[in-house]
Amino acid sequence: MNILFIMYDQLRWDYLSCAGHPRLETPNFDRVARMGVRFTNAYVQSPVCGSSRMSFYTGRYPSSHGAQWNGFPLRVGEQTMGDHLRRLGMGCYLIGKTHMVPDAEGMARLGLAPDTVIGARQSECGFDAVVRDDGLWGEGPDGFYDCKRSPYNEYLKAQGYAAANPWHDYANAGVDGEDIASGWFFRNADRPANIREADSETPWLTDRALEFMETAEGPWCAHVSYIKPHWPYIVPAPYHAMFGPGDVPPATRSAAERAAPHPVYAAYMDNMIARAFQRDEVRDKVIPAYMGLIKQCDDQLGRILDRLEATGAIRDTMIVLTSDHGDYLGDHWLGEKDMFHQPSVRIPLIIHDPRSEADATRGTTCDALVEAIDLCATFIEAAGGDVPGHIVEGRALTRFLHGTEPDCWREVAISEYNYAVTPMRAKLGLRSDDARMFMVFDGRWKLIHFEGGFRPMLFDLENDPDEFHDLGEMAHVRDEIARLYRHLHAWSLRNAQRVTRSEADLEKMRGRSARVGILPFLWDGSEVPAEATAKFRGKAGRDYTG
Amino acid sequence: MNILFIMYDQLRWDYLSCAGHPRLETPNFDRVARMGVRFTNAYVQSPVCGSSRMSFYTGRYPSSHGAQWNGFPLRVGEQTMGDHLRRLGMGCYLIGKTHMVPDAEGMARLGLAPDTVIGARQSECGFDAVVRDDGLWGEGPDGFYDCKRSPYNEYLKAQGYAAANPWHDYANAGVDGEDIASGWFFRNADRPANIREADSETPWLTDRALEFMETAEGPWCAHVSYIKPHWPYIVPAPYHAMFGPGDVPPATRSAAERAAPHPVYAAYMDNMIARAFQRDEVRDKVIPAYMGLIKQCDDQLGRILDRLEATGAIRDTMIVLTSDHGDYLGDHWLGEKDMFHQPSVRIPLIIHDPRSEADATRGTTCDALVEAIDLCATFIEAAGGDVPGHIVEGRALTRFLHGTEPDCWREVAISEYNYAVTPMRAKLGLRSDDARMFMVFDGRWKLIHFEGGFRPMLFDLENDPDEFHDLGEMAHVRDEIARLYRHLHAWSLRNAQRVTRSEADLEKMRGRSARVGILPFLWDGSEVPAEATAKFRGKAGRDYTG
Repeated sequence: MNILFIMYDQLRWDYLSCAGHPRLETPNFDRVARMGVRFTNAYVQSPVCGSSRMSFYTGRYPSSHGAQWNGFPLRVGEQTMGDHLRRLGMGCYLIGKTHMVPDAEGMARLGLAPDTVIGARQSECGFDAVVRDDGLWGEGPDGFYDCKRSPYNEYLKAQGYAAANPWHDYANAGVDGEDIASGWFFRNADRPANIREADSETPWLTDRALEFMETAEGPWCAHVSYIKPHWPYIVPAPYHAMFGPGDVPPATRSAAERAAPHPVYAAYMDNMIARAFQRDEVRDKVIPAYMGLIKQCDDQLGRILDRLEATGAIRDTMIVLTSDHGDYLGDHWLGEKDMFHQPSVRIPLIIHDPRSEADATRGTTCDALVEAIDLCATFIEAAGGDVPGHIVEGRALTRFLHGTEPDCWREVAISEYNYAVTPMRAKLGLRSDDARMFMVFDGRWKLIHFEGGFRPMLFDLENDPDEFHDLGEMAHVRDEIARLYRHLHAWSLRNAQRVTRSEADLEKMRGRSARVGILPFLWDGSEVPAEATAKFRGKAGRDYTG
Repeated sequence: MNILFIMYDQLRWDYLSCAGHPRLETPNFDRVARMGVRFTNAYVQSPVCGSSRMSFYTGRYPSSHGAQWNGFPLRVGEQTMGDHLRRLGMGCYLIGKTHMVPDAEGMARLGLAPDTVIGARQSECGFDAVVRDDGLWGEGPDGFYDCKRSPYNEYLKAQGYAAANPWHDYANAGVDGEDIASGWFFRNADRPANIREADSETPWLTDRALEFMETAEGPWCAHVSYIKPHWPYIVPAPYHAMFGPGDVPPATRSAAERAAPHPVYAAYMDNMIARAFQRDEVRDKVIPAYMGLIKQCDDQLGRILDRLEATGAIRDTMIVLTSDHGDYLGDHWLGEKDMFHQPSVRIPLIIHDPRSEADATRGTTCDALVEAIDLCATFIEAAGGDVPGHIVEGRALTRFLHGTEPDCWREVAISEYNYAVTPMRAKLGLRSDDARMFMVFDGRWKLIHFEGGFRPMLFDLENDPDEFHDLGEMAHVRDEIARLYRHLHAWSLRNAQRVTRSEADLEKMRGRSARVGILPFLWDGSEVPAEATAKFRGKAGRDYTG
């Protein structure tokens, strides 16, 4: 079996027709949902790209792997799905984005050169990179990410898109008369991107994925990782015109949220992104473009599915569709992601498992509390391995896919967010490690704990599914808050760094000291069988005691 | 300045005359105490050799570095004082014991060969090993530690001690007529070890240390790490006869402790080591030998001090005397270490700082709550560096040494113990990660939290300095328990794995996205200065939008 692990960037859980979107038809996402299980309660371990992805790839929480924000390198030696899968004989390949920053200082300390196989895998969070492209290309030596490595920009140049940074000037900009109409400006979001649709980012990456699948020798796990529908919000024709302001759902926001907001939430509601998305004209321009980008993703997914069906490979390919986090799009008076309301922390997750054991669950949904880190464990089992629980903190979803519920499952989903490098930390005057927040969600009650001495936030999603009413200061929910804090504390004491000793190792170690003759508890040896002490008896050599 | 970092193994805090021992005179320990500061409230991060030492060497808690018991390898890439000090131009050398087990699997994964400089340092927890000898030599392929590496055994063989394992047969055994009288049997503890005193372990290692100091080029940090007074409890003449049963203090134990003991404590009181030390004849044989071993350590320390004074090197040598944990010796009905009563978790710590800033504190004591991890930070400052607080969790003791109290200091000391591979876990029927306990001690109140659903233990050392009365179930101390749990929870949420990003890195990252042109919050660009968006404007190239 191969694994096609497709990730979209910033795709909200509810912008799919199979998840109930009222206007957006995504027949190809729905097609996979019909072939597999749609997990309706899936959450990322951090609502920010880099940190969330490192959790997907390592199967570990951000506070375990340490890469807690974009640009925090994943420490050298931290194991990822690539390490686990290759041990099981399955190659693990990257086609697209990871947001990985190598631990260059740690690699140098260990003498690992980036141009060796080991060094390259350390640099690409364990993947063998077929194509690495994170999008978001700046310019010059200070450009975002490493400007030397934009295969997409090189592709565009080869196609004749003449510019220093065609990623911006064509793929992510329209035209306004004779001028560039940058996709960075929301007012341009309804223009068509100035690019042939087939050359835009999503089809380009799809081509790379199809090329890979044509030639790759299995078993493989291919992480096909699209930058879209992440901003810049602009899409080529005909997708730019498929949706308009009339298709934009009303913002999920309430005046109650601004009445006496939690100080951290207040700081977020006051940032530049939030203030932009509080404007109706921004939502009316951006959301149709966002929907167009998703529609394009769906069409490109259709190409992949068609190919898999045509070749018959679909019969031995696990297909996973998910996202690294959502997008507020003005809900809760916010833009982007970063906090823990459902539009941000909840993700789409659809898994087609081709094995016959999964036949009974095809087309069903599963509402168990699922975490992003569970995929790493699921893939390890799919590759025929046992999940190394001393390293991977996620749990395999295999039993849900096969219709046999696990004996016991997690009671809460945890997500974390470190905002130490954001303007909100400065505004709130926090020490770096106090600029952290944690979500504990049991499916109904959602607690948000803040370091730095703030009160918690609490939402009751049963009675307040839109999360408008923060109960964090309400006396009548004190017991719920205390209960969720007990979960947080139990989690925070989890043993996440015993990574060099497996359960099997521990079993082997038990009693080893005595077996090798370390016996610091004997009066005269009569306490144990004679053979245990035989090697400590016998005739003395020369007597030096005098 | 050089650093002479001397560690004894299993040396109780109170078995020194400067700490008030009623019978044991340790003039050379006292001599260092007169030259420096004796820290009277110093605690290890784990009361077991390997884990405690990895905390000393990394400056991090066991749950941060992961090496939570003897034989749990320190994960590849985990930084130690060797890494930090070498960056500052100070060599870091090992002479003696570390209890380090390399992460062989991790090293292989990263392609690190043990016989390279980098690989050797990874194998020796960051030290350049002048001599590595952990003592406790078993026999055959199943021998304890790696039998190929006992420089001490090789030394003994070269001196004519004829045996497969002279470490046991001579250095750690007496003679009984014509037979070996093994030091593993407590009834032999009053016999002289069958070895010339100068060839026994403590003088042998002292010779190696003196050789090192004679030739080493500084600045250096030398970790001189004795195996003694750790068991086997047997010592050569004349030390074997210096103390007798009349010198043995009464056991610090009470019938009250056995009345309704905590289940984990009860399991420990019932293990073979505890049952041995509950016998008076064991204490009467073992403790005089233990005192003799310490007396020998003191004499050998005298040799080092004399040499440092004779050469004048004492004027630029920081001297640190400490231990990796204590020894119950029958107190609290226990033997060995493993739990958190003072005889186990509290350690001697004496620091001579040669700098003139320390003149005012010479001969004083300091009762601040000090942790073993503070030494790594102290050494980094002594080498002229700033403590990398994103990696090293300990805090430098420099200000205490220089008589200027830090502005704020820790309120509690934390220690941890993972007993997953001990018989107590099996007896209690625990999952491996439930076999963990944590101490939170504020100088008066000592809370012990157990994973696995047990109630906590609590001691009030002000009213019960001997720790006889476990208040863990008492209603009147509920607030104290809650308060200490708040400390535990705050500690457990500490950010211990953000090791690839320093505070300075975070400062540099703030605002970087906007600086490189990532601007996902603009309507038309008028929100920011024109130069911020200049590169996204200009004349469009060919129009592809059609």
